[in-house]
Amino acid sequence: MSRDVSPVWKPRDPAYEARVRESFARQSHMATLGASIAFIAPGEVHLALPFAAQFCQQNGYLHAGAITSVADSASGYAAYTLAPPDTDVLAVEFKINLLAPAKGEGFLACAQVLRPGRTLTICRADVFTTGTSERVLIATMLSTVIVRPVER
Amino acid sequence: MSRDVSPVWKPRDPAYEARVRESFARQSHMATLGASIAFIAPGEVHLALPFAAQFCQQNGYLHAGAITSVADSASGYAAYTLAPPDTDVLAVEFKINLLAPAKGEGFLACAQVLRPGRTLTICRADVFTTGTSERVLIATMLSTVIVRPVER
Amino acid sequence: MSRDVSPVWKPRDPAYEARVRESFARQSHMATLGASIAFIAPGEVHLALPFAAQFCQQNGYLHAGAITSVADSASGYAAYTLAPPDTDVLAVEFKINLLAPAKGEGFLACAQVLRPGRTLTICRADVFTTGTSERVLIATMLSTVIVRPVER
Amino acid sequence: MSRDVSPVWKPRDPAYEARVRESFARQSHMATLGASIAFIAPGEVHLALPFAAQFCQQNGYLHAGAITSVADSASGYAAYTLAPPDTDVLAVEFKINLLAPAKGEGFLACAQVLRPGRTLTICRADVFTTGTSERVLIATMLSTVIVRPVER
Repeated sequence: MSRDVSPVWKPRDPAYEARVRESFARQSHMATLGASIAFIAPGEVHLALPFAAQFCQQNGYLHAGAITSVADSASGYAAYTLAPPDTDVLAVEFKINLLAPAKGEGFLACAQVLRPGRTLTICRADVFTTGTSERVLIATMLSTVIVRPVER
Repeated sequence: MSRDVSPVWKPRDPAYEARVRESFARQSHMATLGASIAFIAPGEVHLALPFAAQFCQQNGYLHAGAITSVADSASGYAAYTLAPPDTDVLAVEFKINLLAPAKGEGFLACAQVLRPGRTLTICRADVFTTGTSERVLIATMLSTVIVRPVER
Repeated sequence: MSRDVSPVWKPRDPAYEARVRESFARQSHMATLGASIAFIAPGEVHLALPFAAQFCQQNGYLHAGAITSVADSASGYAAYTLAPPDTDVLAVEFKINLLAPAKGEGFLACAQVLRPGRTLTICRADVFTTGTSERVLIATMLSTVIVRPVER
Repeated sequence: MSRDVSPVWKPRDPAYEARVRESFARQSHMATLGASIAFIAPGEVHLALPFAAQFCQQNGYLHAGAITSVADSASGYAAYTLAPPDTDVLAVEFKINLLAPAKGEGFLACAQVLRPGRTLTICRADVFTTGTSERVLIATMLSTVIVRPVER
């Protein structure tokens, strides 16, 4: 595709990875869902989510809200890799399209920064199935993240 | 406001409420979050969500994914109140703006149908804080729900 | 509806209306479309758009992009009514659902502020048909507007 | 990026290109804006848009509504390349992030299908500047398109 929009971003904080891991560890919702960090690079974060029967919708597929949770956190942390030290990130808004039922052994939410900004960072995240069968794109998110000085 | 868009919708299935309650009871994710049905009427469903420490983001507020989960389910069930018998509903997509941190004793996600359709139903949901302090609008969602014959 | 979210906002600039009119007059796209200001109040702006054959899609209805244009400008100017002097507004992002074909004599895009902020203001806009037949809600938008110091 | 989501789609109508061109020619809004088809392939359509002073916002950049118009049409026609004969396409909804001011000699809206469906097709579109200076990604859209039998 001519539309490749994956430039190499330069982090403004060399300790970005430790900062992301420390913040992720404070998200009790990620621990509750069983999500873990699969990949961190400047402008990109992947989160892994296992299937779990307690987070399902009425047909036994993972609830859209569980999928959205990891896509949102992946996006926020992708933005956070490029943020300066002593900042925090918050989701302003996001939109997600649910392309296929969330059935499978596990899921991978892959977020990347489309445009980092001083105030607002725009991210895209795709969520795929993982496991033994063919990888399926089940959701795609477009989001706006705000970078702010840490509240102390 | 001159823009009141709350017409009185006529349900096509007199048993709509029982159908919504039965489907909601099958959403394990709602039970896990502690969400409950607060209100059902044709074209409108409210879900209550208590604050819980295990669904938080890095600053101790409820995670956007938890708020989104109840806004999404409320929207789907608002659409479901107007669906014919022997159908199911699935979220096609939604967009949510997070207007204020999700801090408070509890939350109420109020969804209403903006336009019901044979195939697609469009819903709006607002999420408010509940409890002893002043009610705050913390999020608003706009979503597209597809109505389909039940898979058997 | 219990979900009325139309508080009375206080403008921070008493000259807000003149400021909106002056900026609107500089939007050549609004003049080209034939749009005009129908209503201005703190946190709320309505724009009128006549039907015109040169802005249509393949079936002779107004193109979604024309409807979006007035919903976007109405939202930006609703945010602008609450902005301080010497600022400008820009759309960060928006999402629109197209609920019915844009057929009719004219259209009214009614935007209101849901939450004004120092940096970001969140708006909702509904677009209705106008004219001799019954008023129809044809589109609804949810948007994020950034308020910035004027570039000189 | 590991997230390449550009499969090769098979058109269900060998005459897809003629069908797209015929429908595009009926969109008076595209002719008014001066937009033209730059590329058609199964699941992918690019539209070119020159800068024009009559479609601007208050600072002399192209209005978000003009950019949105071509991103929306490109998305609809990307979906249309994969639709069966005797169908039409309509935008259900879209969300766009405006990443940079629309200044430049011209613009290219590149849309691709993420998931084609019997009823709903999900598309992504990126809008770039064109001309002598460096290509800049100014907007990205995520949209839902409905495919329907032609109304006669």
